[in-house]
Amino acid sequence: MMDDDMETGTLGAYQDRPRTFPNMRTKPYTPLIFRILLGINVRVLFLLLLLALVAIFYVGASTSPIIVFVISVCILSFLLALYLTKWVLAKDEGPPEMVQISDAIRDGAEGFFRTQYGSISKMAMLLAVVILCIYLFRSTTPQQEASGLGRTTSAYITVAAFLLGALCSGIAGYVGMWVSVRANVRVSSAARRSAREALQVATRAGGLSAIIVVGMAVIGIAVLYATFYVWLGVDSPGSMKVTDLPLLLVGYGFGASFVALFAQLGGGIYTKAADVGADLVGKVEQGIPEDDPRNPAVIADLVGDNVGDCAARGADLFESIAAEIISAMILGGTMAQRCKIADPSGFILFPLVVHSFDLVVSSAGIFSIRGTRETGVIVPVEDPMTILQKGYSFTIVLAVVAFGLSTRWLLYTEQAPSAWFNFALCGLVGIITAYIFVWIAKYYTDYKHEPVRILALSSSTGHGTNIIAGVSLGLESTALPVLVISVSIISAFWLGHTSGLVDETGTPTGGLFGTAVATMGMLSTAAYILTMDMFGPIADNAGGIVEMSQQPESVREITDVLDAVGNTTKATTKGFAIGSAALASFLLFSAYMDEVSSFSQEPFKQVDIAIPEVFVGGLLGSMLIYVFSAWACSAVGRTAQEVVNEVRRQFIERPGIMDYKEKPDYGRCVAIVASASLREMIKPGALAIISPIVVGFLFRVLGYYTGHPLLGAKVVAALLMFATVSGILMALFLNTAGGAWDNAKKYIETGALGGKGSEAHKAAVTGDTVGDPFKDTAGPSLHVLIKMLATITLVMAPIFL
Amino acid sequence: MMDDDMETGTLGAYQDRPRTFPNMRTKPYTPLIFRILLGINVRVLFLLLLLALVAIFYVGASTSPIIVFVISVCILSFLLALYLTKWVLAKDEGPPEMVQISDAIRDGAEGFFRTQYGSISKMAMLLAVVILCIYLFRSTTPQQEASGLGRTTSAYITVAAFLLGALCSGIAGYVGMWVSVRANVRVSSAARRSAREALQVATRAGGLSAIIVVGMAVIGIAVLYATFYVWLGVDSPGSMKVTDLPLLLVGYGFGASFVALFAQLGGGIYTKAADVGADLVGKVEQGIPEDDPRNPAVIADLVGDNVGDCAARGADLFESIAAEIISAMILGGTMAQRCKIADPSGFILFPLVVHSFDLVVSSAGIFSIRGTRETGVIVPVEDPMTILQKGYSFTIVLAVVAFGLSTRWLLYTEQAPSAWFNFALCGLVGIITAYIFVWIAKYYTDYKHEPVRILALSSSTGHGTNIIAGVSLGLESTALPVLVISVSIISAFWLGHTSGLVDETGTPTGGLFGTAVATMGMLSTAAYILTMDMFGPIADNAGGIVEMSQQPESVREITDVLDAVGNTTKATTKGFAIGSAALASFLLFSAYMDEVSSFSQEPFKQVDIAIPEVFVGGLLGSMLIYVFSAWACSAVGRTAQEVVNEVRRQFIERPGIMDYKEKPDYGRCVAIVASASLREMIKPGALAIISPIVVGFLFRVLGYYTGHPLLGAKVVAALLMFATVSGILMALFLNTAGGAWDNAKKYIETGALGGKGSEAHKAAVTGDTVGDPFKDTAGPSLHVLIKMLATITLVMAPIFL
Repeated sequence: MMDDDMETGTLGAYQDRPRTFPNMRTKPYTPLIFRILLGINVRVLFLLLLLALVAIFYVGASTSPIIVFVISVCILSFLLALYLTKWVLAKDEGPPEMVQISDAIRDGAEGFFRTQYGSISKMAMLLAVVILCIYLFRSTTPQQEASGLGRTTSAYITVAAFLLGALCSGIAGYVGMWVSVRANVRVSSAARRSAREALQVATRAGGLSAIIVVGMAVIGIAVLYATFYVWLGVDSPGSMKVTDLPLLLVGYGFGASFVALFAQLGGGIYTKAADVGADLVGKVEQGIPEDDPRNPAVIADLVGDNVGDCAARGADLFESIAAEIISAMILGGTMAQRCKIADPSGFILFPLVVHSFDLVVSSAGIFSIRGTRETGVIVPVEDPMTILQKGYSFTIVLAVVAFGLSTRWLLYTEQAPSAWFNFALCGLVGIITAYIFVWIAKYYTDYKHEPVRILALSSSTGHGTNIIAGVSLGLESTALPVLVISVSIISAFWLGHTSGLVDETGTPTGGLFGTAVATMGMLSTAAYILTMDMFGPIADNAGGIVEMSQQPESVREITDVLDAVGNTTKATTKGFAIGSAALASFLLFSAYMDEVSSFSQEPFKQVDIAIPEVFVGGLLGSMLIYVFSAWACSAVGRTAQEVVNEVRRQFIERPGIMDYKEKPDYGRCVAIVASASLREMIKPGALAIISPIVVGFLFRVLGYYTGHPLLGAKVVAALLMFATVSGILMALFLNTAGGAWDNAKKYIETGALGGKGSEAHKAAVTGDTVGDPFKDTAGPSLHVLIKMLATITLVMAPIFL
Repeated sequence: MMDDDMETGTLGAYQDRPRTFPNMRTKPYTPLIFRILLGINVRVLFLLLLLALVAIFYVGASTSPIIVFVISVCILSFLLALYLTKWVLAKDEGPPEMVQISDAIRDGAEGFFRTQYGSISKMAMLLAVVILCIYLFRSTTPQQEASGLGRTTSAYITVAAFLLGALCSGIAGYVGMWVSVRANVRVSSAARRSAREALQVATRAGGLSAIIVVGMAVIGIAVLYATFYVWLGVDSPGSMKVTDLPLLLVGYGFGASFVALFAQLGGGIYTKAADVGADLVGKVEQGIPEDDPRNPAVIADLVGDNVGDCAARGADLFESIAAEIISAMILGGTMAQRCKIADPSGFILFPLVVHSFDLVVSSAGIFSIRGTRETGVIVPVEDPMTILQKGYSFTIVLAVVAFGLSTRWLLYTEQAPSAWFNFALCGLVGIITAYIFVWIAKYYTDYKHEPVRILALSSSTGHGTNIIAGVSLGLESTALPVLVISVSIISAFWLGHTSGLVDETGTPTGGLFGTAVATMGMLSTAAYILTMDMFGPIADNAGGIVEMSQQPESVREITDVLDAVGNTTKATTKGFAIGSAALASFLLFSAYMDEVSSFSQEPFKQVDIAIPEVFVGGLLGSMLIYVFSAWACSAVGRTAQEVVNEVRRQFIERPGIMDYKEKPDYGRCVAIVASASLREMIKPGALAIISPIVVGFLFRVLGYYTGHPLLGAKVVAALLMFATVSGILMALFLNTAGGAWDNAKKYIETGALGGKGSEAHKAAVTGDTVGDPFKDTAGPSLHVLIKMLATITLVMAPIFL
């Protein structure tokens, strides 16, 4: 359908340079929910919104003043996001040829998003039914019995949380894409005027998505928590204790990670298959530049940036924050209960407050990136990376102050008066870890440093040595992050351990919570990091639009600089994402152990890897990571081959394309990539979801027949732990190798080692092609997979017991 | 020096085709020990040998009749090997041009071996001093006190065992190389007559090495065991118990794996750097065939086959068998003690008997591969793979029978009359596992099957898609082996568990020993497997000699077929090696747990991965594997780049080479590769040895200050376990991807997808180049690393406690 529309344009306009594109749009699409909302009278809508707000605040106020604070900050942030939206949309879209290209990208992206989230929501509904059945037939824990939380209530709560998490994650993805398909053309247009303005539009657009994503994760959990609190009458006699409440939120995290996994897989396959396919024929075989309008796969490539990087990364970060908040809340609750702290709500709600401050300080950081001075004097162009880094440093300073204040406010307890200070130090450990992670990723992937230069040098001896060097670089780059994460886990644990918080027997119990606080510290500038991340694909797309609409060289130079910066920020934020995933998984693992002991009414404190079955569980967990990565990469490879064949076919059947005499059939490539990536995302995704369930169930049965209680739970614990460790290392390997190959190519394109067109450049392009699925499909999917595994084992625990 | 000798040949002979090569030999080299032996009067020598034999038999007889049986079988095997040596050496070496090439290869290989083992022996001496110091200052266990085994005795025993293991491993490597550099030219020469004869010479030469390697591993342990038995007065009152004796042998395993690690690293880097370097310039840039005499790196490439594949694989398999025998003996002893079995020697010595039978049945298998019929009638050429497979099936049938007999003989005990049958089934599980492993490896790497065909197809869309597809294939290929090994670990464990062997409290205790028996079953045809493995490089070398000496097309066809078969057998035996490494490491891990509890006088049954430090240990263990692989691959990449530059330089400076008018400087390439690989093997090797020691010691100190006893030992246990799991998966990935790339290229060379010279072929050659360090350097080094880690933690345990 899209195909036909794109096809029917007259060829006349195409034959002259510069040319405008024939209309390639389908009719604009508005999601059902917006259409319903738009159908309602504005006053009624406003009234409804007001009512909802009042209800939320009422429930929040009945729970805790902290919740009111959190919700208020979130709502203020949404208003800020509204302002940013207006600001961005008020920017002009540039000349008609830009608008036409942008429209084609938007249609492709929205079409794919629609179909993709259609499939995901069907799977989510199916899974919801499965969860409901499991929970309806499982046994209840003594705690639940005591709190009057029946089997049915617990089932509905879990399913509701799951669906809400999935919905919010979907909205986060949609917002990411919605913003980026509108911002790209505005950045292109701004680039015609000044580099600073283009930078400002891109960062504000990125910031807008980031604020909505983080704000939604926080408000979702806050509202869910408050609702459960009021509904279940928590803390009233005979009811549930507040310290057990966070466990009910796990479904939310699972829903979020479920959607994020498929969003990342589908989007990642889409973007890289189009990119690889376009490059292999366009750049390597035909020797035309990237984003050249003659390449039939170029629109698909630009669509990919939006669905793969923006939508998927939005869902990914949403899920990271949700998982991390929930696991920290669980651990805070457990610790508060053990230490018999009088008012545990501070410990439980601490993560929500940290992320509220995250919204505040990151907004300040985003606004610190100013556009052109109002005086009208043209300032010399500054390196955009420096500007972004300055903003980051500013945000970090604010975050340290805000973190210190939050710990003093919420974590002060008379039982251990200096504990808050230890936890503040844990937060500092996390912030420093994040900073070092970003630095390490930059060291290994930026061509200013030695590793990428050596990689580029190895391209001069051929394709083979380039690949060997890149693989070695990626494998080696796991060392420093692992050492850093090791030091930070242990030091945060010991800071927490020595905080003075002890249980009834006098044993220190704050260790794990210390690690949790470090994780929060790491994520305390998440919104700013996400802004930098979103900036990349928007700039990339803007560059594509500029290239395709044949703008003058000076405009291209500006977008090229922004694009290069975007590549670096994308690579560094991946380091950040994997670091936080590692910490969050370790926390969720502890939560899983607690959950199992509360169900089985037996202590479950140890996972003994000397038992053969447990060792096998570990083997299977690591294997899961390998096979998942394999399927993610091969999906890209297969789809790219389809694109290659289609592009080659078009070049042969329409010889006029190369001389701008014939228009390539962009829509055909878009359609091929879209349907292939939807098909290909199912296999790895299903593997990730089904294997822990099957393994846990099988070993539960085996344990039952061999008189080995809890065998299923133990094997799943080993699976989870080994999968986490392997997943962290594999993701580091894939991301870094991919980023390094990309930048080695860029380094050669600056003229080093023979520059563009040399044999070294050809070898470097091969490396870049190989790196594409590594760094943008398999790698980021692994971040999500790790956390999804941790939440799925928590939710599905009843099956293994 | 070698350089000069090769250089001084006159160019006259080189200019005519077919040409003989100028003399490229250095003066023949005989190791010091042989020179001393040759200096002694023959009668004195014979007398000394006889005396040694008598002494061995006397000590053996004082220990157990089983030891006498084992030693007798080994000595008979050595006599058989002597016969095979005579048989192989009696074959003619062919025309002078073949001899000259073979001499050059022999000199290069022996020169490298000398220097390499010189460095290794220095490192071994250093490590021996370190071990001595550690053991002299460590505390003794109550068991040791009771048995009167003092600190000093224990230190000397460990060091002596370590040095003996290192020495035997070195001899095993030397034998492997000695045979192959002599057999290669004889196979070439035989190929001029008939394919069957060439096959027979190659297999008999391989068999000869295999018998010596396996025999030496077995007799070394048997003699060491018997010596300790007699010397320490084991089982006499107030002395050590026989069930504790096997733990003293661990040093032997460590010595063997230490040497094997460096042998594999150095040899692996050598062979693949030369191969990659030669291919990148010769095949890809200049378009000359493989092993073309015009390529200056061709002699280095052929030398590499001998030092990398033959010598290193000999040391590797030697170490596999030693590690597996010792770990099984330890577990057998522990179990016999727990079950209070009256005569535990059957359980302890069982592995030695299994491998004695291995020698017998594999010899039968080797002799079942017959040459030309004596009738003189020329029979049609049969597929060599079929012949080898037939021999394997024949060996397996014999092995099953022999295994059944051994279990009935040694594992029958009145306490559990049917236990032997369960253990026989465990052995069957192991044999079947080995068979399936070989089959899986074949499925993923043979171009008769789908995976390699898909890989070949992906080459047609370019270098990039070929690499992506190969990486995916490799990652995916981990799934089936992991599933098989999981099933076999669990089923063997349960067969052992239900064997009826119970300890004093009635708890079944045979589980781990069941797994051990399965491992022995897997290795019960090791000598035949090693024969098939050694066959590969000999055939490869023979092909090289035929190519270089410009033999007629018909001769080349024969060696090409043998070479292709060799590629398949090499790939399949790697699957076998990694499977047995996985099982052996799991056993050694259990032995480590036992060792720690006996030292610390505390039960040490669990490694709890929920403790942050232990989780960190796991992270570090997995990281070790990644960094080790990175360094192994990058060593090849760097050295290959040196070769590429040298070869390019020669082609530019001596333009006559391409027209056969000038002789390339082979010696320069040999010297470059040799010195580079010796330099490059140190870094990964040192990493592997130092990291577990440093991690264990650091966490021991940390545990001391934080009141956490045994923290060092626990963290090392996690490190070991995660490294094992990651190592298995990484090795499977590297080996399979490499093998598949190699055969995808071979498939295209058969004429598919455009055949030689097509774009698809170029892409496939890139894949092959990338696969080279994967499958022949990093992959096999990981096999050794896994077992080396297991033995080093056992020997170094006193540091962590």
